[in-house]
Amino acid sequence: MISYKEACGIISKEIEQIILLSEEVEILSSVGRVLAEDIIADVDLPPFNNSAVDGYAVRFGQSREWNIVGEVSAGNYKQYSITDKDAVLITTGSKMPDGTDTSIPIEIVDVMDDTLYLKEGTILKQGMNVREKGNDLVKDKVALLKYEKISSKNIGALATCGKSKVKVFRKLKIAVLATGDELIAVDEVPVDDKIRISNIYSICAAIVELGHEPVVLGFVKDIKELIREEVVKAIALDIDILITTGGVSVGKYDFLKEIFNEIGIQEKFWKVNIKPGKPIFFGTFNKSCKEILVFGLPGNPVSSSVNFSVFIRPALDKLYKQNVTRVVNAVLQEDIQKKDDKRHFFNGVLYEENSIWKVNSRFSNSSGNLIEMSRANCFIVFKEELKNLFKGDEVTCIRM
Amino acid sequence: MISYKEACGIISKEIEQIILLSEEVEILSSVGRVLAEDIIADVDLPPFNNSAVDGYAVRFGQSREWNIVGEVSAGNYKQYSITDKDAVLITTGSKMPDGTDTSIPIEIVDVMDDTLYLKEGTILKQGMNVREKGNDLVKDKVALLKYEKISSKNIGALATCGKSKVKVFRKLKIAVLATGDELIAVDEVPVDDKIRISNIYSICAAIVELGHEPVVLGFVKDIKELIREEVVKAIALDIDILITTGGVSVGKYDFLKEIFNEIGIQEKFWKVNIKPGKPIFFGTFNKSCKEILVFGLPGNPVSSSVNFSVFIRPALDKLYKQNVTRVVNAVLQEDIQKKDDKRHFFNGVLYEENSIWKVNSRFSNSSGNLIEMSRANCFIVFKEELKNLFKGDEVTCIRM
Repeated sequence: MISYKEACGIISKEIEQIILLSEEVEILSSVGRVLAEDIIADVDLPPFNNSAVDGYAVRFGQSREWNIVGEVSAGNYKQYSITDKDAVLITTGSKMPDGTDTSIPIEIVDVMDDTLYLKEGTILKQGMNVREKGNDLVKDKVALLKYEKISSKNIGALATCGKSKVKVFRKLKIAVLATGDELIAVDEVPVDDKIRISNIYSICAAIVELGHEPVVLGFVKDIKELIREEVVKAIALDIDILITTGGVSVGKYDFLKEIFNEIGIQEKFWKVNIKPGKPIFFGTFNKSCKEILVFGLPGNPVSSSVNFSVFIRPALDKLYKQNVTRVVNAVLQEDIQKKDDKRHFFNGVLYEENSIWKVNSRFSNSSGNLIEMSRANCFIVFKEELKNLFKGDEVTCIRM
Repeated sequence: MISYKEACGIISKEIEQIILLSEEVEILSSVGRVLAEDIIADVDLPPFNNSAVDGYAVRFGQSREWNIVGEVSAGNYKQYSITDKDAVLITTGSKMPDGTDTSIPIEIVDVMDDTLYLKEGTILKQGMNVREKGNDLVKDKVALLKYEKISSKNIGALATCGKSKVKVFRKLKIAVLATGDELIAVDEVPVDDKIRISNIYSICAAIVELGHEPVVLGFVKDIKELIREEVVKAIALDIDILITTGGVSVGKYDFLKEIFNEIGIQEKFWKVNIKPGKPIFFGTFNKSCKEILVFGLPGNPVSSSVNFSVFIRPALDKLYKQNVTRVVNAVLQEDIQKKDDKRHFFNGVLYEENSIWKVNSRFSNSSGNLIEMSRANCFIVFKEELKNLFKGDEVTCIRM
């Protein structure tokens, strides 16, 4: 059995073999996608000197009085022969007429007929209220870097750089197959020892949240030939990753590992010194064109969710160079114990109080407790070598 | 001119008039949506006592030796007549046979033929490794509350409660129309005093991020009749909110406010004591069936983004009862100044260092600077009554 850190290292090494392809998408479809190109300003930004206020454009000098010789508004530029005595009415964002360098806000002037007077007690500064051409970004400079995850705050930068379509990395296709004789459809009512399938939905939803494309393969009974058939079909698909749940422990019906070996999926590790989620299998399958990563997660829905959060999600973030801060150090609010030397992941509720992060672990932490997990918002990391964590200890939390 | 707080109060009051409708969506489409129903456990969760380990189910007593009389695996329950001397091989998650109450992990037993021996030095506790029926949630109790925003972490709870379809609040339809003679399409190259349209895309992307449905109405020149026509068409649509950009200041071509008044949009406020984004207009339009909220934002892309972030987004969060913590108190890393008594929103870069939030404001903060804004991640709130903020001051930041 390997350690958590060793397992992460192995996954990290293999996932780097995935070659990221790119595609072009419309600007509004790019939200949440990862840029596959640097975005360059093709013009100076702003493209011209413009007024930051509604006011009057003048050439700075000793004057406190000007003749209003014309007007410009945004998109309606006109050129005037400007002397020191001339002023042009200008609206916010409009191009400063050639020969002017200073914009006087309407609040500090009086206008009588066509003459402009600076109010008493006000002073001008050369260049005031002028946004200079290229001040935001000079032509040919980089506006957004490759690997930036696009959010609404940088859509404006894309648009202003002329990107009505933008090159982003393609989503990975991740197939999810559940196994287990105990599973019934969500629509059914559990009788006897059946339980509703939930882990394929949780995992597929997590895949969607990460910006990738889930391929829902449904669930199949614990019959070796059936499972084998489904796994063979799955790896024949145009997918990058296959995730299975169930059948990787040591029980009589835990066929997955056997099947993986039989069909040529190369085992990289099986079992990690953690709880929950110990029986995780990781391997790779070489197709002529590419390598598929295969994760065999335990069937317990909480275990498989923990596995996804602590192994698969960080590896995918790293592959797309997403420096996502999911780790928060917080002050533990109760004593917690464990008896073994595994790394444990406890459900926790992280909250901020007076600018200090605190975490609550008022949970039984049975790894079957799905409702409980849905009310938590982080996993508290309980390290291998520790048996006790005390109220007041600073602990590492991984946001769900 | 009203204050920021007064403006928020007025918007908040009006937005509460919007009646939230609901719709049913498939479980996997529910990620990011807001629950419109309480989710109730229709069975005990888990539905039966089950083993938390791979091991042997026994009736707790003085025995350290048992006859293995059978086996159960997940989904393959069998009933046995159990005595104190009997053990049943059991896999993780499987239903405990009636008459057993304790599950002995395989790690602490030896098996010879059909006899099970407890290893020396190990002790049993009654009920060990048994997850009790209803331990996660008892039948008829609430698993998830109405107004929960669904994320991958609670998809499992929905599935296990039998919700293959789930009732969520409908998205609001928010139409966005830009105005301005200076605007050209993103595909075009700006010449003279033209600039590429960007604010409709930024705002629509922000609407998508908030989980609502943007209706992109494009952009129109500063010709009063043209704009009027577009606004009339817009409010005739099946929308909840109309957002316009441009034309709300005091320039000669600022027609929007006039048009709003002429067509019966009732002004709630115009101009707020903030920077950027001062000229914001807010009004309502009564249709026979409902009220449409109308926001007239300034044309400057940074101003309109600030307006969206500090007025519209919090109001929408409140309407959907989303207690979203976008506010972070952080230690300012430079002195900053302002000269007026407006509330300013400065671009800032928020980061955590040694568990302390810090914020950088290394920006010129020209309200035209779109690229600059795309590199920031928060707005620093610079209150009305202050003229100086100093390095080391704790300031309020609003995450973008």
